Amino acid sequence: MTEAVFKWPVRVYYEDTDAQAVVYYANYFRFLERARTEWLRALGVDQVKMLNEKRQIFVVAHTHASFIAPARFNDELIVTAELARLTRASFAIDQKIFRGDELLLEGGVKVALLDADTMKPQRVPRTLFEGNEHAS
Amino acid sequence: MTEAVFKWPVRVYYEDTDAQAVVYYANYFRFLERARTEWLRALGVDQVKMLNEKRQIFVVAHTHASFIAPARFNDELIVTAELARLTRASFAIDQKIFRGDELLLEGGVKVALLDADTMKPQRVPRTLFEGNEHAS
Amino acid sequence: MTEAVFKWPVRVYYEDTDAQAVVYYANYFRFLERARTEWLRALGVDQVKMLNEKRQIFVVAHTHASFIAPARFNDELIVTAELARLTRASFAIDQKIFRGDELLLEGGVKVALLDADTMKPQRVPRTLFEGNEHAS
Amino acid sequence: MTEAVFKWPVRVYYEDTDAQAVVYYANYFRFLERARTEWLRALGVDQVKMLNEKRQIFVVAHTHASFIAPARFNDELIVTAELARLTRASFAIDQKIFRGDELLLEGGVKVALLDADTMKPQRVPRTLFEGNEHAS
Repeated sequence: MTEAVFKWPVRVYYEDTDAQAVVYYANYFRFLERARTEWLRALGVDQVKMLNEKRQIFVVAHTHASFIAPARFNDELIVTAELARLTRASFAIDQKIFRGDELLLEGGVKVALLDADTMKPQRVPRTLFEGNEHAS
Repeated sequence: MTEAVFKWPVRVYYEDTDAQAVVYYANYFRFLERARTEWLRALGVDQVKMLNEKRQIFVVAHTHASFIAPARFNDELIVTAELARLTRASFAIDQKIFRGDELLLEGGVKVALLDADTMKPQRVPRTLFEGNEHAS
Repeated sequence: MTEAVFKWPVRVYYEDTDAQAVVYYANYFRFLERARTEWLRALGVDQVKMLNEKRQIFVVAHTHASFIAPARFNDELIVTAELARLTRASFAIDQKIFRGDELLLEGGVKVALLDADTMKPQRVPRTLFEGNEHAS
Repeated sequence: MTEAVFKWPVRVYYEDTDAQAVVYYANYFRFLERARTEWLRALGVDQVKMLNEKRQIFVVAHTHASFIAPARFNDELIVTAELARLTRASFAIDQKIFRGDELLLEGGVKVALLDADTMKPQRVPRTLFEGNEHAS
């Protein structure tokens, strides 16, 4: 199950589009984060508890995206997330956005776990992506 | 000078528009807040200091807007702000958005001053809109 | 069934919040529009077809909102929409946002139906909110 | 002058921040685009004319960013843009965001010139970044 690709549906609203009648390029990064947030939730990670009880936050250190084809108003998209690499203080996630079978975007993020007060890197739990209730 | 209408220029970028090729209705409220923030700054109010030193924040309690004509990509707008009413714990600001002489939007906000921790209403300084360095 | 209040769930993500750790005031208007868009969809209105085949668009002419209590990261909200008034060329919708039983926002919009090319008001179909496939 | 790094100031407002009290990661891409748009304007490129008269649009094909240090509410940022590579149908721009001397973000975009109707790649004018009125 940790092998599985996480999938999250996103509907495109007017708020997401721009005057070129496609989704504004920066807004795809919102869609990517919704999928990551829901994946963490599905893995039992409660980010609010993490902040309040452990003073830990996830922070995006790097991101990239190739815009292959545009999404438009009213489109139903599927956003995927998949663990690419897990190191001591960070992890990389590969992400894609599909409309049906059509690949619209390919990208990813590198995420660090930081102390919310000192902003110092924290050790990422080895079991984070194994889907247990470790982080709550 | 407290009588004067504050004016702030805003340029419309792709990020502000939607697939109808006009500024997305919710985004005008960003423009309105930029003008209010800059007005407070011009009046000598440092919102960061207010939060850090006095634990006080301004919070919008009510807003309304009539969308008279749409703004488009690349438009240069003028956003105005004018004190409409000052009460013990809040104030009302009337705001307009113009493109040249053309009125695009007419609206306003009611803003409360709150304790950032308790969210309880605080007394708004009588001299807030007189342009002295009272709030810093 | 035209009497019923339409309800749409919205999850709060980081993208919706601001540095006061609450949902940014302008972003509630996005939530309100998502509910309206989904309501129209549920009523059988296909806004893409409307634009392509009839050159008609819905445009917000006025909006207002009272911010009663703030929504926060991770909150699950319910956004409601209810027909308040239907006139020849526009309609008014009352909307609320709840977190559980707690009312967070009360507001509404006045929406006009326009010709997408001339931006002239169009007659709103009498049966729009009766839930038939009239607009497609 | 084509060698010069273009610089554009951006002020951080509440709309740009999130509940971690820093600029939301996707919103930096808006700042990057504002600088690119203003650079094109400074080079004499009128994107509205380009669309209306030539049916040509610029589209971001790829973007990447390293988030080195966070920007916060009220920060005054400088966003830079510099030509990295110009090919037949696209160009790459390197971009940075600074707060004073501190580098906050390093990234870039690859931009394609497309026919707005067919979405087919168009030849990018050789003189685009030489600062003449070629594109209008």
